[in-house]
Amino acid sequence: MSKRILVTGAQGFVGQKLCAYLSAAGHTVLRTDTQLPDDAQDTQVCNITDASSVDALLEWAGDLDAVIHLAAITFVPQAQADPTRVMDVNLHGTMHLIEAMKQYTPKARLLFVSTSEVYGAPQYLPIDEAHPVNPTNPYAISKVAADYYCNYVAQAGDLDIVRMRPFNHSGPGQADHFVLSSFAHQLAAMECGQQPPILQVGNLEAARDFLHVDDVVRAYALALEHGTSGEAYNLGSGKSRTIQSALDALLTRVSLDIQVERDPARMRPLAVPEIRASHNKFTACCGWKPEIPFETLLDELLAYWRTAMEDTK
Amino acid sequence: MSKRILVTGAQGFVGQKLCAYLSAAGHTVLRTDTQLPDDAQDTQVCNITDASSVDALLEWAGDLDAVIHLAAITFVPQAQADPTRVMDVNLHGTMHLIEAMKQYTPKARLLFVSTSEVYGAPQYLPIDEAHPVNPTNPYAISKVAADYYCNYVAQAGDLDIVRMRPFNHSGPGQADHFVLSSFAHQLAAMECGQQPPILQVGNLEAARDFLHVDDVVRAYALALEHGTSGEAYNLGSGKSRTIQSALDALLTRVSLDIQVERDPARMRPLAVPEIRASHNKFTACCGWKPEIPFETLLDELLAYWRTAMEDTK
Repeated sequence: MSKRILVTGAQGFVGQKLCAYLSAAGHTVLRTDTQLPDDAQDTQVCNITDASSVDALLEWAGDLDAVIHLAAITFVPQAQADPTRVMDVNLHGTMHLIEAMKQYTPKARLLFVSTSEVYGAPQYLPIDEAHPVNPTNPYAISKVAADYYCNYVAQAGDLDIVRMRPFNHSGPGQADHFVLSSFAHQLAAMECGQQPPILQVGNLEAARDFLHVDDVVRAYALALEHGTSGEAYNLGSGKSRTIQSALDALLTRVSLDIQVERDPARMRPLAVPEIRASHNKFTACCGWKPEIPFETLLDELLAYWRTAMEDTK
Repeated sequence: MSKRILVTGAQGFVGQKLCAYLSAAGHTVLRTDTQLPDDAQDTQVCNITDASSVDALLEWAGDLDAVIHLAAITFVPQAQADPTRVMDVNLHGTMHLIEAMKQYTPKARLLFVSTSEVYGAPQYLPIDEAHPVNPTNPYAISKVAADYYCNYVAQAGDLDIVRMRPFNHSGPGQADHFVLSSFAHQLAAMECGQQPPILQVGNLEAARDFLHVDDVVRAYALALEHGTSGEAYNLGSGKSRTIQSALDALLTRVSLDIQVERDPARMRPLAVPEIRASHNKFTACCGWKPEIPFETLLDELLAYWRTAMEDTK
């Protein structure tokens, strides 16, 4: 059934792909972000840190079936550099959206995109939704607080809210401060001679759970349809891969002799050796399973950056 | 050894008693709050939600040995009525204080007063510091976020921070929207004929862990001296008492025939049957034990409100 859906953070990496997916599925998609293309249809600029701006957004949007709330500061070092800003955007932004939804479209479902970072260093693997939370950086703290606030509002019966806790995800178009995209960008730059064949890397021993962004987008659409209000769902592949193995797989795709160098600036403090999700709860509820192979993700990342390099020539 | 100590929320219930205690112990006490008496010495007004006001406070305070951060919205219904405000005061206020301390007095210890509410409904009793957190109202969420942020800053080595998680506490001078003070106030009002002998009560079955405020104040002073930076300590009596038993004990102190009535407005949602703290970690670290009997707390509460009633005649 066709729905009327507002997406915040619509210009972001996941936002753009999600809006395209929902539109292709026949839904009416309203998009908001801090900046939007001039020629965009069904869009409204919004500053989520300003309650009156969020009120104006919801008044503009009219009757909605759902809001998917992606707008957030998501890069940990950016959050560390300006921690009060990340609270304003990620926590107050979510609270403003909830207040406005209660007023303007109280029957709509809110899909809140939380993060696997709420769990901190794993106490056991795979990480399920019963795993204790232990956020260890300002980004994770802001998301924990917003996640708990969503739960509070849903438990009080004030709004229908489903929370998603995605683990690492990547894909063509992701900013190159995230690890896989960073590697692919650098390799593509080396191939066309724009960078010497020295790859800057962070912690290669860490094992993470990576999903293709298209699997994430499909999961959000399924959660909108089949998720249970008040629940939180982990979203991951259920497999972990070391950064080293991802790098090795990328290097086999490049015919250059490349030197790998450690960059201390890319080493996160409080690093944890392995993160792996259980997606059993979400699979049981919504029938979702990861579909896109990790090899395809790497192929698409390299192809994306090779094209981007061509364009800058 | 005499210390120079800044106390935020100095005009609050705990703040006033803490400042008096620290002064009597020979420390230099600087006091701040949103409003202060005109004739007060060593005081500076501060709006903790405004970073520049907090900067000005720390610049005024000069070199400090410690800051005890009590300033907060602590009443759950007030937090529920204005959730963004409670985040501004309890979370952003703490973050502003941390930023200002890093700049103006980076060697000083911060004693952050968190709350037992971070744990939510107990998964086991007594509640120790390893108990998972699960905040279920905006007050608790704001404190969880600030608590985690203090831990993040301490773990990064940016500031010396000790966190205290007090359970219920009461004493003469506490506002009468907290349960024991509410009962004592109403009983004193009945005794002098200012209220008909009908007592408005909330959930009487709930069992809570109550401390006398003087035990709390002594604990904060000990934590300042002996606490370990980066650690969080539960602060409770280790005993739980039902609200019913506290009411019964108060009623034996009053020679009136009193009718007890349930007031739905006093029933908290998501009520939990029993809360009881383990203070073992704090006792092991700082040698603190609760000293003031519960009976004394009840005597003092009634005496306080009897005097207050006399004053209003």
